[in-house]
Amino acid sequence: MGNQTIYFKRAPRITATSTVAGTKECEGIIGRYVERALDDDMFGEDTYEKAECKMLSTVIDGAIANGGLKREDVGMIVSGDLLNQIISANFAARDFSVPFLGVYGACSTMAESLAVAAAFVDGGYVSSAVAATGSHFASAERQYRYPLELGTTRPPQSQWTVTGAGGALVTRRGEGILITSATLGKVVDYGVTDVNNMGAAMAPAAADTILAHFRGREDPSSYDLIVTGDLGALGSRILKDLLWEKGLDVGEKHVDCGEIVYNVIEDEFQGGSGAGCSAVVLNSYLYSKMKSGAFGRILFVATGALLSTVSSGQGESIPCIAHAVTLERGGK
Amino acid sequence: MGNQTIYFKRAPRITATSTVAGTKECEGIIGRYVERALDDDMFGEDTYEKAECKMLSTVIDGAIANGGLKREDVGMIVSGDLLNQIISANFAARDFSVPFLGVYGACSTMAESLAVAAAFVDGGYVSSAVAATGSHFASAERQYRYPLELGTTRPPQSQWTVTGAGGALVTRRGEGILITSATLGKVVDYGVTDVNNMGAAMAPAAADTILAHFRGREDPSSYDLIVTGDLGALGSRILKDLLWEKGLDVGEKHVDCGEIVYNVIEDEFQGGSGAGCSAVVLNSYLYSKMKSGAFGRILFVATGALLSTVSSGQGESIPCIAHAVTLERGGK
Repeated sequence: MGNQTIYFKRAPRITATSTVAGTKECEGIIGRYVERALDDDMFGEDTYEKAECKMLSTVIDGAIANGGLKREDVGMIVSGDLLNQIISANFAARDFSVPFLGVYGACSTMAESLAVAAAFVDGGYVSSAVAATGSHFASAERQYRYPLELGTTRPPQSQWTVTGAGGALVTRRGEGILITSATLGKVVDYGVTDVNNMGAAMAPAAADTILAHFRGREDPSSYDLIVTGDLGALGSRILKDLLWEKGLDVGEKHVDCGEIVYNVIEDEFQGGSGAGCSAVVLNSYLYSKMKSGAFGRILFVATGALLSTVSSGQGESIPCIAHAVTLERGGK
Repeated sequence: MGNQTIYFKRAPRITATSTVAGTKECEGIIGRYVERALDDDMFGEDTYEKAECKMLSTVIDGAIANGGLKREDVGMIVSGDLLNQIISANFAARDFSVPFLGVYGACSTMAESLAVAAAFVDGGYVSSAVAATGSHFASAERQYRYPLELGTTRPPQSQWTVTGAGGALVTRRGEGILITSATLGKVVDYGVTDVNNMGAAMAPAAADTILAHFRGREDPSSYDLIVTGDLGALGSRILKDLLWEKGLDVGEKHVDCGEIVYNVIEDEFQGGSGAGCSAVVLNSYLYSKMKSGAFGRILFVATGALLSTVSSGQGESIPCIAHAVTLERGGK
């Protein structure tokens, strides 16, 4: 079997990020770090989908500008989102005259897009690339679950889709946070069929990728943090159990963006979810803390549930995936 | 502005392909070249979506086996499809314990996945990768248009989604067809809103990428063929007009997979479409003709319409994209 981790020898780096988050999200830990806090989750648009697209377009533009580049300097945009046919990413990319790679990895998109952007930059194919994703609570609810107007009761194992977007500018040179490796995930399915319990469905995929990453090379002590995307409280417990059973103790190193994103997690049951969850936390709070030196090295593992309403309707279980990237402070 | 074309200096190559196609498709030119001709478009499954997934899984497995590899030898699978949340690709990847990158580029997926696979192989990150996509007439109809049971009349500008899938094994060494460059497309939108006229919507994206490819470097005479994915008859005429207006005459070099895939194109109005259209034609007929020496060098340009039923329902026009890869016989 080939090694599942790829190493970026020329150390592509994140030299700038940009984030947008909704009103509820900004009440939490990310509030002080988000570049643009919305006071209206519609972002001045007339549909939820257009608001989501505008968030994505805003962070792509923001990452480019914050990195001191112009749109025409950027080699490629790698982006995707949760909506059918990733329309938020497609329509956001329409605003830019930049080569575009659409990806789909559900809530793993931030890690997937970073890994692809890093590979294209490291390989010398482009000198810079933007990796970005986002989600919107209301567009996700009506596509995956029920229209909000129905006022459907949420079960206790559910999570709350984050309204927010994050983008990172990955370049070959400059001062920033290095992307030194990526562990691309396999599709893992433990047979969970409860579409309200994404944390339980995704935890085995996170465990699979984390185990692959640490297999025979390094151990969690070499990281300051092992950050999962949106497993939530229940999913995080399952992840730790699964890893512990395999002899890997991530212990106090582990933190889940879904667990920390909201102020009072109990109000959202298991916490935050959505492609925007890890995108916002990574590109605001974590990026800022890495830049300031509070964290020197993190393993960022975003997980995605690869279901659709059609697959669930046809009785299928929920296949999941997790991609990981290693982020390090430069000059270490 | 950066150069839109990426060159693969280590010449990753397609060393094996695999294809599956439906009954109607196998009546045409590809019939003699397809690896597996279905005698039942349900492929033994009980839903169209599962049949589509099985086709994709079959060609991924086929490409690996035809290349003399085992599943565990493969570094990554790059795949996507037309269904919401690319469930065909996700569920197909579940069968393989191989790192997976989900991509979404609608009918441009064969070129997008080949470009990504080539970059990862050329960059030295994996020694082999499978690029694959497919589509199914019946799953596409009920997702994008109307349930077949309605018997809706098709307008004359429409195309027929190909039932079929194609996969290519891209490796670092071995005898095969070289992938020497990729021109990643930008999202282009000329304001077409007719969801039955994909050819007209996609032609400007194809023109944009082809013009970018030829800008200042080489000219169409260096290719034996310039192959578009699924513009159909009308879209192909529009493409040639758009290129001609910009001073680029592709003339007799141009062929469109959608135009040639069916036996009697008039029966399907403008011809074939769908991610499976160019995937099947490339990986059966064209690959075979390149191996035999009939074609030495082709520019493969697959186009995708990046709409969803939601975006169209909200009054949006149809953004499109085209990605191109240069394929060459080895040893030239």
